[in-house]
Amino acid sequence: MKIELIGLENIPIINEKVDLSKVIIDTLEKQKHSVEDGDVILIAETLISKSENNIIELNKIKPSEKGIKIAKKVGKSPELIESILKESKEMVAIGKDFIITETKHGFVCANAGIDESNVESGFATPIPTNPDESALKIRKTLENEYDVKLAIIITDTQGRAFRNGAVGVAIGSSGIDPLWKRKGEKDLYGRELQTTEIAIADELSAAASLIMGQANEGIPIVIIKGFKNFKNLRNAEKGIKSLLRPKEQDVFRK
Amino acid sequence: MKIELIGLENIPIINEKVDLSKVIIDTLEKQKHSVEDGDVILIAETLISKSENNIIELNKIKPSEKGIKIAKKVGKSPELIESILKESKEMVAIGKDFIITETKHGFVCANAGIDESNVESGFATPIPTNPDESALKIRKTLENEYDVKLAIIITDTQGRAFRNGAVGVAIGSSGIDPLWKRKGEKDLYGRELQTTEIAIADELSAAASLIMGQANEGIPIVIIKGFKNFKNLRNAEKGIKSLLRPKEQDVFRK
Repeated sequence: MKIELIGLENIPIINEKVDLSKVIIDTLEKQKHSVEDGDVILIAETLISKSENNIIELNKIKPSEKGIKIAKKVGKSPELIESILKESKEMVAIGKDFIITETKHGFVCANAGIDESNVESGFATPIPTNPDESALKIRKTLENEYDVKLAIIITDTQGRAFRNGAVGVAIGSSGIDPLWKRKGEKDLYGRELQTTEIAIADELSAAASLIMGQANEGIPIVIIKGFKNFKNLRNAEKGIKSLLRPKEQDVFRK
Repeated sequence: MKIELIGLENIPIINEKVDLSKVIIDTLEKQKHSVEDGDVILIAETLISKSENNIIELNKIKPSEKGIKIAKKVGKSPELIESILKESKEMVAIGKDFIITETKHGFVCANAGIDESNVESGFATPIPTNPDESALKIRKTLENEYDVKLAIIITDTQGRAFRNGAVGVAIGSSGIDPLWKRKGEKDLYGRELQTTEIAIADELSAAASLIMGQANEGIPIVIIKGFKNFKNLRNAEKGIKSLLRPKEQDVFRK
């Protein structure tokens, strides 16, 4: 059994609102990449935000008193902190050099996912307004263009509570169920499985992150071919929500 | 840029102490898989524990009073809970249907990583005693056999604090630094990177998990080819420790 991860190179740098589906189709064609039934296409969130002209101009942000106070505490600029507060619905943890919130989308992560990398100086990209919708739109256009069934996943790089280092995670998806529920399935010895829920969209995102890198690689799109569970997980309705642990089931939030 | 994940099929079922390196070499040769410089070989922890005859016979465990009390609370067998306590150095969180501890190795995870799947009924496999050492031993044997530089990663499937579903993570490694420190590197716009530490061994493990599955696939070994950062991360000394967040930096533990 084999899975292939292919990085889409030479994506043009995007600094204004563009039809990202068209950019992807153009790049696929120029580079003669085939698009096949069951392909999973992963796109870095920064690319989505930039293509939707969803960019924060930090100098234009007027920090509130609360923002200024928190900025001092965590050692970040008041404009960035104010932007983080605007993107968040709840503070989760705060310390000398970090701020973790629940974003308006429901993600618990540092800096509300606002990214100051790979965007012009003085600017920052937030998590896309509606990553599932962005993924859906691209999926429909590409499925139509190539007459295949695909999954589109929007990825971010986020830290974890108990482990050092960030990893690729999914923040939006369309075309497959992001959570693989295996209740009732049997192991090699015929016993019912113990771990029955796999966050498959996060695993796909972590895999794609191996190629995307985070710096100047310039590979914000990765195609995964040969993911044989695509068929079982095909779902045209579900977005990312099933990956978010509801607050009432969260035993670590203070 | 391309990365390939290859699942090693038809690994014999292991129910006694064996030289796993030999099993791997035999399988690679039978199936005519090439082993190249820079390959990363990921092995499911259950396979390691079984090959080291590190198996818990649950019926032989005598639960303590504490074990019996906790078992009632979390709805698991007293024998399993007693085994979890034996593998742990600290309780982290406990609830109606879960128990999260810090294992003696330093992993914060459910059930101390003890797995009742893919082992005979009445038995369970703990996390290997020293996963880094297991990885080192296999790496040295394989590097010697094929005259190449490799990385070996031992994988588990673990849940996360704020997201539903488990993902593949690394619990032991040899041959590369599991944490990619990118401080000082620049982004596409020449600015210093914001997210500078990537848990590369966890991303590799999550990728491998896409092939391994958790049930009756019987693919406990995955080879990753074409991981171009292997060279930068090559390190013959480091184990998994840099991926573990020290307790004093853990803001979520109660």
